[in-house]
Amino acid sequence: MAKQKFARGVAVVGAGMSKFGAFPDRTSRDLFVEAFLEMKGTVDKGLDPGQIEAFYLGNFSSDQFEKQAHLAPIVASWVGLSPIPAMRVEDACASGGVALREAALAIASGMYDVVLVGGLEKMTDLPIAEVTEALATAADTQFEIPAGFTFPGFYAAMATAYLDQYDASPQALAHVSIKNHENGALNDKAQFGQRIADIMASKKARAEQKGLPVPEWKDELEFLADPKGNPNIAWPMSLFDCSPVSDGGVAVLLVAEEIAFRYTDSPIYIIGSGQASDGALTDRATLSHIPAAVEAGQQAYQMAGIGPQDIDFAEVHDCFTIAEIMATEDLGFFPRGEGWKAAMSGKTARDGEHPINTSGGLKAKGHPVGASGVGQVVEVWKQLRGVAGERQLPGNPRRGLTHNVGGSGQTCVVHIFERRD
Amino acid sequence: MAKQKFARGVAVVGAGMSKFGAFPDRTSRDLFVEAFLEMKGTVDKGLDPGQIEAFYLGNFSSDQFEKQAHLAPIVASWVGLSPIPAMRVEDACASGGVALREAALAIASGMYDVVLVGGLEKMTDLPIAEVTEALATAADTQFEIPAGFTFPGFYAAMATAYLDQYDASPQALAHVSIKNHENGALNDKAQFGQRIADIMASKKARAEQKGLPVPEWKDELEFLADPKGNPNIAWPMSLFDCSPVSDGGVAVLLVAEEIAFRYTDSPIYIIGSGQASDGALTDRATLSHIPAAVEAGQQAYQMAGIGPQDIDFAEVHDCFTIAEIMATEDLGFFPRGEGWKAAMSGKTARDGEHPINTSGGLKAKGHPVGASGVGQVVEVWKQLRGVAGERQLPGNPRRGLTHNVGGSGQTCVVHIFERRD
Repeated sequence: MAKQKFARGVAVVGAGMSKFGAFPDRTSRDLFVEAFLEMKGTVDKGLDPGQIEAFYLGNFSSDQFEKQAHLAPIVASWVGLSPIPAMRVEDACASGGVALREAALAIASGMYDVVLVGGLEKMTDLPIAEVTEALATAADTQFEIPAGFTFPGFYAAMATAYLDQYDASPQALAHVSIKNHENGALNDKAQFGQRIADIMASKKARAEQKGLPVPEWKDELEFLADPKGNPNIAWPMSLFDCSPVSDGGVAVLLVAEEIAFRYTDSPIYIIGSGQASDGALTDRATLSHIPAAVEAGQQAYQMAGIGPQDIDFAEVHDCFTIAEIMATEDLGFFPRGEGWKAAMSGKTARDGEHPINTSGGLKAKGHPVGASGVGQVVEVWKQLRGVAGERQLPGNPRRGLTHNVGGSGQTCVVHIFERRD
Repeated sequence: MAKQKFARGVAVVGAGMSKFGAFPDRTSRDLFVEAFLEMKGTVDKGLDPGQIEAFYLGNFSSDQFEKQAHLAPIVASWVGLSPIPAMRVEDACASGGVALREAALAIASGMYDVVLVGGLEKMTDLPIAEVTEALATAADTQFEIPAGFTFPGFYAAMATAYLDQYDASPQALAHVSIKNHENGALNDKAQFGQRIADIMASKKARAEQKGLPVPEWKDELEFLADPKGNPNIAWPMSLFDCSPVSDGGVAVLLVAEEIAFRYTDSPIYIIGSGQASDGALTDRATLSHIPAAVEAGQQAYQMAGIGPQDIDFAEVHDCFTIAEIMATEDLGFFPRGEGWKAAMSGKTARDGEHPINTSGGLKAKGHPVGASGVGQVVEVWKQLRGVAGERQLPGNPRRGLTHNVGGSGQTCVVHIFERRD
């Protein structure tokens, strides 16, 4: 059992991101430049990039998506950082969160004081069938993929198990989707800037324009329950339960705690970090939660010396809506079997008692897989500094948590951030 | 500039590897199990795998070679290590060396005391043309690959520049190849167990058997100079200048210095570590050496508080023979423009003043790309503990160095190891 401590403290002093979406005329390098420049502009007292001592890049598979491996030194060179050490960290969709942790450990080791963390994925260059194949390599391709699984299938299996075990309403999934689109509509970096109600209205308007019968959905729930509005992907999950295929880049600057005030008067401290691994989904005793998430969360709480009740808000890994519900239980925000009720009753909304995915989450903000774990940090940084604009949480939140999952839960990494001003 | 120190010391207390070669009936998991079990057997006072707290895996692109990304937690699960943190580190052919460094930093950070480092690549499942394409993704695929470069071409360009700049004899390349095959013939883990003289003799015998004219090569140099024995690949490099396509797994156990004696009375200490990055070869001011290697070497020497003259032997990244010659200059063993003469005069042989690649190097031992940097550590471990068998260096060597390059030099990582008994 790891000792769950850093030999010295680590703080976030800058955070930026590109818009998430589909950008056919841009490479991952371009996206990273956009993120890097925004990050640089957020360092209150200014950043001379020559002070950056190492670069950790979370990226799932530029190998497959762009036919470009060895991405870290190329991207480092692209923003003028050669010859600093530059490396890519890969744990599927948890690559970004793991890169953040590795960068924090490197500062704690005494080797560096100032480290850049990047997250990057450019997924939309490939035809969608090839994207699905590339994502499938994050599962166990010796045992799981030959059996016919792809990722919507994995999470559909988990959703089915969860709904059955807790006698839960499938409508809970729709509530997660509606909430995250509400939040994403307030985030100008989000891939989807529309609320589900807006999407429903525009579908009705289009039918009317074309002289077709106008669907009689009376609200978002009816729209999402209708396969004509929300086609089935892998039961019980439909299109609006799935995060999109995305391009995006993120940059976050970490420094040793004792020099944080050189960069800002409002550093955000990393007070908890946890990471755990697991075998393939086929090997697990349970489908209705993710054991590695429980373990990673417990490690992070232990390091921070706090519990779930001390977390004001969280960005969790909602690659599929069921994943958000499981996460809120795995992290201890709600008891087992209560997460779906919390989603339905509005407890996880911005004005609820446990706000989840105020950024829009992977669902609405977008899911450039290796970047997502670093993207979560941008939202926590903004909320804790009170600069999240229209989606800013009330009450000056003090502590935020990020929860980033790889594959069907072979990796999970959790971080807890705190402001102290 | 990084401070070049660890907050606490790190030692190697176990090291093992699979045989390197082409194993069509085995997956990377199988190869790692072989390496892990051998490593376990080398821990003098025994290892309970339950004590291992984290797993760092160097792997270039199982994504492309085996259609299996997210390899670290799968491999960790395969040897019974779940739920410890497991992550893959990627910097092309330097992935292994960078994984070693990350593991050492993680121990130095205070988070872990006992960390497993793996190196793994399974390259031979793909047709050779696809292997070349996969390797090419380690270059800059936006600018270099469309211009027609593959890796033999990059190193041929460097070789041409080197030979021209220093008026060097192309025969120096052949000397590197002959030496490394001599060493590999004494290493039962090596992919190629034959000396060049043996290969030449067997080609002559085969011609005789078939009733064909028997080539009149009088020695290895004549054989290597004849395109009928040693076909041209990319001038001035021929087949025997190139490391092979390989499968292989490696496992090395690192622990915090203060607990090393729980595992062995003869730990091997990591006293120096350096890493640097660079842009694409097309962007560099020089082709005749690798600037990132110079930088990484200087960092490692600075951390160790020693210089090149204090290194008894080294494993360097001889993906191509020219790379070994450049490395011996980049690391300061010989002045610029003198490396080729040293290779020709036997100074880098086992009984020379600067033994290089006693294991056989990537050339003869094999080059499972992401594993190679960890494989180098196995040789240093054996030589420093005096258990390298027939290829054991005389004089009880005290310090060994590893030098691991990614791509055409976009990454280089250097480590220095020392025994203190």
